[in-house]
Amino acid sequence: MGKNGNQQQQQGGKTAADGITPRAKDYGQWYLDVVKRGDLAEHSNVRGCMVIKPHGYAVWEKLQRALDDRFKATGHQNAYFPLFIPLSLLAKEEEHAAGFAKECAVVTHYRLKAMDGKVGVDPESKLEEPLVVRPTSETIIWAQYKNWIQSYRDLPILVNQWANVVRWEMRTRLFLRTAEFLWQEGHTAHATEAEALEEVRRMLEVYADVAENVMAVPVVKGHKSEGERFAGAVDTQCIEGMMQDGKALQMGTSHYLGQNFAKSAGVQFLNKEGKLEYVYATSWGVSTRLIGALIMTHSDDAGLVLPPALAPIQVVIVPIYKTDEEKSATTAEAMAVADALRGKGIAVKVDDREGMQPGAKYYEWERKGVPVRIEIGPRDLEKGSLCLVRRFVPEVEGETEQEARRRKKSFVARAEAIDGMPAMLAEMQKELLEIARARRAKRTRIIDTLEDFEHFFKEEGGGFAWVHWAGGQAEEEEMVRRFETSIRCIPFDDQLPPGAEGPGTCILTGKPSERRVLMAKAY
Amino acid sequence: MGKNGNQQQQQGGKTAADGITPRAKDYGQWYLDVVKRGDLAEHSNVRGCMVIKPHGYAVWEKLQRALDDRFKATGHQNAYFPLFIPLSLLAKEEEHAAGFAKECAVVTHYRLKAMDGKVGVDPESKLEEPLVVRPTSETIIWAQYKNWIQSYRDLPILVNQWANVVRWEMRTRLFLRTAEFLWQEGHTAHATEAEALEEVRRMLEVYADVAENVMAVPVVKGHKSEGERFAGAVDTQCIEGMMQDGKALQMGTSHYLGQNFAKSAGVQFLNKEGKLEYVYATSWGVSTRLIGALIMTHSDDAGLVLPPALAPIQVVIVPIYKTDEEKSATTAEAMAVADALRGKGIAVKVDDREGMQPGAKYYEWERKGVPVRIEIGPRDLEKGSLCLVRRFVPEVEGETEQEARRRKKSFVARAEAIDGMPAMLAEMQKELLEIARARRAKRTRIIDTLEDFEHFFKEEGGGFAWVHWAGGQAEEEEMVRRFETSIRCIPFDDQLPPGAEGPGTCILTGKPSERRVLMAKAY
Repeated sequence: MGKNGNQQQQQGGKTAADGITPRAKDYGQWYLDVVKRGDLAEHSNVRGCMVIKPHGYAVWEKLQRALDDRFKATGHQNAYFPLFIPLSLLAKEEEHAAGFAKECAVVTHYRLKAMDGKVGVDPESKLEEPLVVRPTSETIIWAQYKNWIQSYRDLPILVNQWANVVRWEMRTRLFLRTAEFLWQEGHTAHATEAEALEEVRRMLEVYADVAENVMAVPVVKGHKSEGERFAGAVDTQCIEGMMQDGKALQMGTSHYLGQNFAKSAGVQFLNKEGKLEYVYATSWGVSTRLIGALIMTHSDDAGLVLPPALAPIQVVIVPIYKTDEEKSATTAEAMAVADALRGKGIAVKVDDREGMQPGAKYYEWERKGVPVRIEIGPRDLEKGSLCLVRRFVPEVEGETEQEARRRKKSFVARAEAIDGMPAMLAEMQKELLEIARARRAKRTRIIDTLEDFEHFFKEEGGGFAWVHWAGGQAEEEEMVRRFETSIRCIPFDDQLPPGAEGPGTCILTGKPSERRVLMAKAY
Repeated sequence: MGKNGNQQQQQGGKTAADGITPRAKDYGQWYLDVVKRGDLAEHSNVRGCMVIKPHGYAVWEKLQRALDDRFKATGHQNAYFPLFIPLSLLAKEEEHAAGFAKECAVVTHYRLKAMDGKVGVDPESKLEEPLVVRPTSETIIWAQYKNWIQSYRDLPILVNQWANVVRWEMRTRLFLRTAEFLWQEGHTAHATEAEALEEVRRMLEVYADVAENVMAVPVVKGHKSEGERFAGAVDTQCIEGMMQDGKALQMGTSHYLGQNFAKSAGVQFLNKEGKLEYVYATSWGVSTRLIGALIMTHSDDAGLVLPPALAPIQVVIVPIYKTDEEKSATTAEAMAVADALRGKGIAVKVDDREGMQPGAKYYEWERKGVPVRIEIGPRDLEKGSLCLVRRFVPEVEGETEQEARRRKKSFVARAEAIDGMPAMLAEMQKELLEIARARRAKRTRIIDTLEDFEHFFKEEGGGFAWVHWAGGQAEEEEMVRRFETSIRCIPFDDQLPPGAEGPGTCILTGKPSERRVLMAKAY
C-alpha cells in the first residue's frame, strides 16, 4: 500500500472516531451511533416507527434467507393472513390477549374527506366494528384454520408468515423495541401433544442454529418462567444471548399453546379413533430485533461488525493511486480480483468512487461492518500481492491498539489470497462466535448467595448469573425490584455450564431447588 | 401405466369437473373456482382482506424472486418504511391524494381496555393525529428522502420496498381487488429529468420482461391517458395483458413524478453547478394482482395452469401399485427419478400419500397447475420407461378432448425423460406464451368505425381494439358509458400491430389522430 493510503487512513480515522461514541463512555449512545453511522436504520416522523435503510435491510434479507431455508427444510410453507383483526375476535381471547394486546393500533374509520377545505377523517365512515392492527396473528389464523381442518388427515399444518406487526410502545429503540417491526410467525396445528411439543423444540433448535452458526451469537436455550411466558402459552421456550454490556436479549421464542387457541376458535378434528378432539398448537417467532442483537454482540468502537454469513458485502476492494496511469491499473486489477472472488460465490464491491480519499472509504466500510478489505496500490501490483485487512481479530491480552491493527493486515500473494478467501471468511465466522463465547464466559458466574449476587450486579457490572431458585412470581418481582434482574430461562439439561449442575438451595428463599436458572438484566 | 391408474383417472375426473364451473358457462364463477380448488387464496372474516394460502403464496414467492433479482441487477436496493402515514403528511398531498387516498384505513386510537367486563377501544387513547395505513408510500418516503439528499453526490437513490398496502375497496375479488394486498413499490430520486425518465422506462421493461418471459403473459406497453394516470404523476406508463374473457388487466405501472413530490416534501439538492434544484422522482409497482392475471391468462376448465418458471412444483411423480411389492418398487423408482430431476434443478414432489387413488392425485395436481406429471406403474418399471403427462398442449383446431388428452401423454425411455426434462419445461414455458399470444391475436381488431367498434364489443364479445382517438376526458367517459371501454394505453411506437401504424381519424369525434390507442373493457 502506498504512502498516500496510509496518510488518508489517519485522516479518515479521526473523522470516523468522532462519529461513534466509545462503548466505555456511553453504551446506549454507542449503540445508536453504530446504527446511524452504519446506515442501518433511522427514526421516521411516525412515532415509534423506524425506517430500515438499505444496508440494514440487506442484513435482514440475509437473515430471512437463512431462516426461511431452514423453515422449508423442516417442511414448512409460507402463507399470508390479514393485517387486521376484528376487535371481537381479539376480545374473545381476552384471557390470552391480556399479555400482549393492550397497546394496539386501532382502525376505526375508512375514509378521508376534504371538509371546509381541509382533509380530515370522514365521521360518516366509522366502522361498525373496530379493527386492530395485528400485534401477533394467533387469533386471525386460528379462525381460518377452522375451515382447513376436519380430520387428522388435514394435520399437521406447518405454516409460517413473514409480516409486519404493531405494538404501541411508548419507549422505543431502533431494532430493539419499535411500534412497528418485521418478523416471522410460525403457526402450526397438530393431532397430538407429543407432535406439537416436538415442533416447539425443533423450531427453537432452528433459531439456536441460526443464532450461533449464522449470526455467531452464542445462546442459552431453555423454558421461560411462568411470569415471562407468552400469554396463552402452556410453555414458552427461548434462546437468550448476552450483549456486550452484560445484559440478556431474548432472541427468539417457540410456544407450545396446548389446545387453548383451538378451543377458543372451536377447531376440532376427527382423530384416528373417529373421535372429535381439539387441535394442538404451536407458534414461534423472531423479528428485526435480531439485528439489534447482532450489533450489540459483535460491534466495536469503529462501528458495525458483521459475521461473513450475514454481510451483504463480504469483501470490499479499494484501488489506490496518485496518477491517472496508476488509477487505471489498480482499478483494472480491483475489477479482476472482484470477478475472481465472485466466481467463488463471494459478495464483493469495488469502491472506485472518485473524489474520495482511500482512508474515508476504509472507514466507511468499517463502520458498515464489511469483513474484509482489500487495498490495491501500485506497489501491490508490482509485487503481485494483495493487502488484506480483516475487520476484526480475536483480542490478545495486553496488546496495544496499534499492534492489533497490524495483526489485521496481511500481504498475500494474489492467487493465494483469492483461493484462500472462502476459508478466510469461514475462519472469521468461527472466530466471531468464539470471541462472543469468550466474552460471555468472562461475564458468567455460578452464584450461591444473595451477597455474591448483589456484588456481581452492583459492583462488577453484572452478566449471566446461574443461581438456584425456588421462588414464585412475587419473589421474581422482588428480584426485579432489588437488582433489575429476571429469570431469563430455566435451562434445558445440556445448557448448564460445568459446575452448575445438580440441586441446591434457592438464593432468595433458601428453599430446596432442583436446578439452577439463568438470571440477568435484560433488554 | 396400469389399468388401475386409467380407471382412477376417469373417476377422479368426474369429481374434479364437478368442482370447477366451465369458463363458457360462468367466467366469474370459473375464476373463483380455480382460485379455490387450486388452493391459492380465500376470503377471511375481515371484510375485503384475503388469506393467501401456501400454494398461492409459493407462486408469489417465485414471482417476487424473479422481480427482485431484476431490481437488484438494475442497481436497486430494498428498504422498509413505516406502515402508517400521519394524516397531515397525506393531507399536504391533497392534490395528489385525491386520486388514491380517499378510501383508507384510519388508525385513531392506540389502546384496548376491559370496560364493564368487555374489551373495547379505550376512549382515552385517542391519537392527537390520526394515522393512515399506507395506500402507497410516496409521501412517507419522500419525507425521509429529505434527510438523505443534500447534493448530486447523494443521487440517484434507487430503493424498492416489499410491503402490504390497504385501500378500502367496497367490491372485492380475490387477488384482483382486495382491501389489503401485497406489492412492491420502487421509489427513486434523480438529479435530472432525463435520468428519471430513463428509470421509468427501464422498470417498465423489467415488468414486461417478467410478464412475458416468466409469467408467459404477452403485454402491450404504453402511456396512460390523462384520465387513467396516477394522481401526482406527470406520466404513467403501463403494461396491459388480455384475459381469456377479452378484458384488459393492468399488470404494472411505472410513473414519472417530475418534481411534484420533491416540491411538496421540500427535497432540494445542490446540483453540479452549485445551484439548488428540486429532485426528480419516479415510482413503480406491481402487486399480488399479478396472480389474478396469471390465472385468467392460462388456466382452463380443469383448473390452474402455471408456467414452469413460476410453478412451486414443476414435476409431480405418482407411483401406481396394487400389491405391497409393487408399492415398494414403484415408490423407490419415484424417489430415484425425483432425485435425478432435482439434480437438474427441477422442483419435484413425489406424491406417495396412502389411502388415496392415483386418479384423485392426478386431478389435485392438475387443479394446482403442476406442469408435468410422471406416472410410474409396474409396467413402466418393466419397460424402463416413464409416462409423462403435460398439463397442457397447444390447441389444434377441430380436435376432440380425447385426442388432446392423448397428445398430453407420452411414454419415454427413463434416461431420455430425465435428461430431457429441463428442455421439456422450457418448451412448455415458450408454448404457453405462444398460446396466450394466439388467443390475444384472435380477439384483437384494428377498428375504424364506431359501428364496427360497437359490433366488436356488443356482438363478438370484444377484446383489444386499436382505434384512432382524438377525444378529451369527456369523450373518454362517453366511451365508458356506451361500451364500458376505456383507453388502456397510448402505445409505444413498436407496440402497434402490423397495419395499425400511421395517422387517421378519431373513431368518435372524427378529428384527425396521430396514432391509434388501445381500447378495451378492463378489470
